[in-house]
Amino acid sequence: MTRRKIIGIIGAGSCDENIWSIAEEMGRRVAESGAALVCGGLGGVMEAASKGAKESGGLTIGILPGSNKDDANPYIDIPILTGLSHARNVLVVRSSDVVIAISGGYGTLSEIALSLKMGKSVIGIGTWEGIDGIIRVKSPEEAMKKIKEFA
Amino acid sequence: MTRRKIIGIIGAGSCDENIWSIAEEMGRRVAESGAALVCGGLGGVMEAASKGAKESGGLTIGILPGSNKDDANPYIDIPILTGLSHARNVLVVRSSDVVIAISGGYGTLSEIALSLKMGKSVIGIGTWEGIDGIIRVKSPEEAMKKIKEFA
Amino acid sequence: MTRRKIIGIIGAGSCDENIWSIAEEMGRRVAESGAALVCGGLGGVMEAASKGAKESGGLTIGILPGSNKDDANPYIDIPILTGLSHARNVLVVRSSDVVIAISGGYGTLSEIALSLKMGKSVIGIGTWEGIDGIIRVKSPEEAMKKIKEFA
Amino acid sequence: MTRRKIIGIIGAGSCDENIWSIAEEMGRRVAESGAALVCGGLGGVMEAASKGAKESGGLTIGILPGSNKDDANPYIDIPILTGLSHARNVLVVRSSDVVIAISGGYGTLSEIALSLKMGKSVIGIGTWEGIDGIIRVKSPEEAMKKIKEFA
Repeated sequence: MTRRKIIGIIGAGSCDENIWSIAEEMGRRVAESGAALVCGGLGGVMEAASKGAKESGGLTIGILPGSNKDDANPYIDIPILTGLSHARNVLVVRSSDVVIAISGGYGTLSEIALSLKMGKSVIGIGTWEGIDGIIRVKSPEEAMKKIKEFA
Repeated sequence: MTRRKIIGIIGAGSCDENIWSIAEEMGRRVAESGAALVCGGLGGVMEAASKGAKESGGLTIGILPGSNKDDANPYIDIPILTGLSHARNVLVVRSSDVVIAISGGYGTLSEIALSLKMGKSVIGIGTWEGIDGIIRVKSPEEAMKKIKEFA
Repeated sequence: MTRRKIIGIIGAGSCDENIWSIAEEMGRRVAESGAALVCGGLGGVMEAASKGAKESGGLTIGILPGSNKDDANPYIDIPILTGLSHARNVLVVRSSDVVIAISGGYGTLSEIALSLKMGKSVIGIGTWEGIDGIIRVKSPEEAMKKIKEFA
Repeated sequence: MTRRKIIGIIGAGSCDENIWSIAEEMGRRVAESGAALVCGGLGGVMEAASKGAKESGGLTIGILPGSNKDDANPYIDIPILTGLSHARNVLVVRSSDVVIAISGGYGTLSEIALSLKMGKSVIGIGTWEGIDGIIRVKSPEEAMKKIKEFA
């Protein structure tokens, strides 16, 4: 059997319009590639990416910090309720074959660091500077090209 | 929006033929009801239920204790890799709208107890005796009837 | 080097006077044996056991479900803040060399089951019936005798 | 009641002699301040800090990723066994009143990010650059001065 690839998109729970549109395009491209989307299930970059994926017919998994599925953004097909608070960050990146970081704050930084610790490929769009190991790209289109190259 | 219901099936990682066929039928009926199946992603009851669900066109989520997707049984569409060992039991039941316990050992007992602690409905087929709160049924067919009644 | 033994006491977050006095005596005896006490850090049996241990000069560790040390009962020396909700149950028993269950509800049942799954010895005083593997005793004194025998 | 303060020291699982001696001094100063030391319980910076604390009469808590207390370094008084792999990083920093980062790799970076996400003070000695919010100091002595100022 071959399972579909799982791509994680990480980023902050609130974001400006520019980041939103990048995340939405990224989600759309993930879905069009046939991969499932995993994210943290909440708002901001997570919601934009889920919207892009869902509206392109993709499957969206949200790994939530809390225990209430109403916390999930409306574009999440499958809310995984962890009740683990920030420890759910580990699960988001562990469940992803490759991780795409879009902008982001401290939570995203923790996920980038955990991904690199686990040896996972991290593609970054406008995210944290000064961290060796992130594959930096300028656009969702370029991100998908990188993924096809190595993953 | 309305999300599809998520039904958890819990049981031991190895089982005899009789339990296997009950679990497989249970998985099939879950898929036919339109619900997604969540389970622990490994063998035995988990594999039989996943097989039944998958072969009936259902969506199967396996919340795994380890960090390797090859640990998932072949009928899991989406392996959620936790790396949390037994603590992943909490996530299996927390993510389920209702939990169906089929036979089972100590791991299953922990999941039954956690479900009841969280106030979730637990339907039991041939599972642990002497625990108030389990809704006991004789067959997968009867289990689905109970679920339609209250969930 | 030799580390001091760690004994876990598990039980409900609220209890009657009789259970309280058993838990308090159990905590006292654990401390007198030189072992550290691990528990879930909250009220009821956890608090009574912590009080008994602390007032006998013992060291008390509370592994809490939340993220606020004010949730710990006043007899906890070291609050371990997990933010993991019920998943912290796994850590309470995993960190214990032996587990003593006093009465208890569904949360305690989950901890008993997880202990037995991990192959840990579980000593029970007035706790869940019908579970093979619990070493049943009538009193804290008898519990300590059992621990000296096998642990 | 007043509990003793808990100070977390984070850093890599292997380190050179220079970092070792800084970590050992840091552990010693933590113990001399009367605080308990929490760390990840393994080698490198964690072991050096534990050694310094233990040899100055301090109490050392190691929150381990695995399930075997033999994984703890020899200076850990109380091994907390989590079985949570990298998710235990969250617990190390959550349980600390203040976090001191000494050098470190991706694991340490994840702990710094999680600390800042939780709003905890992070003091850094020779650690990751380019992260707003870290209070940077040059020595263990200066670190303790900062802690007295604000914590």
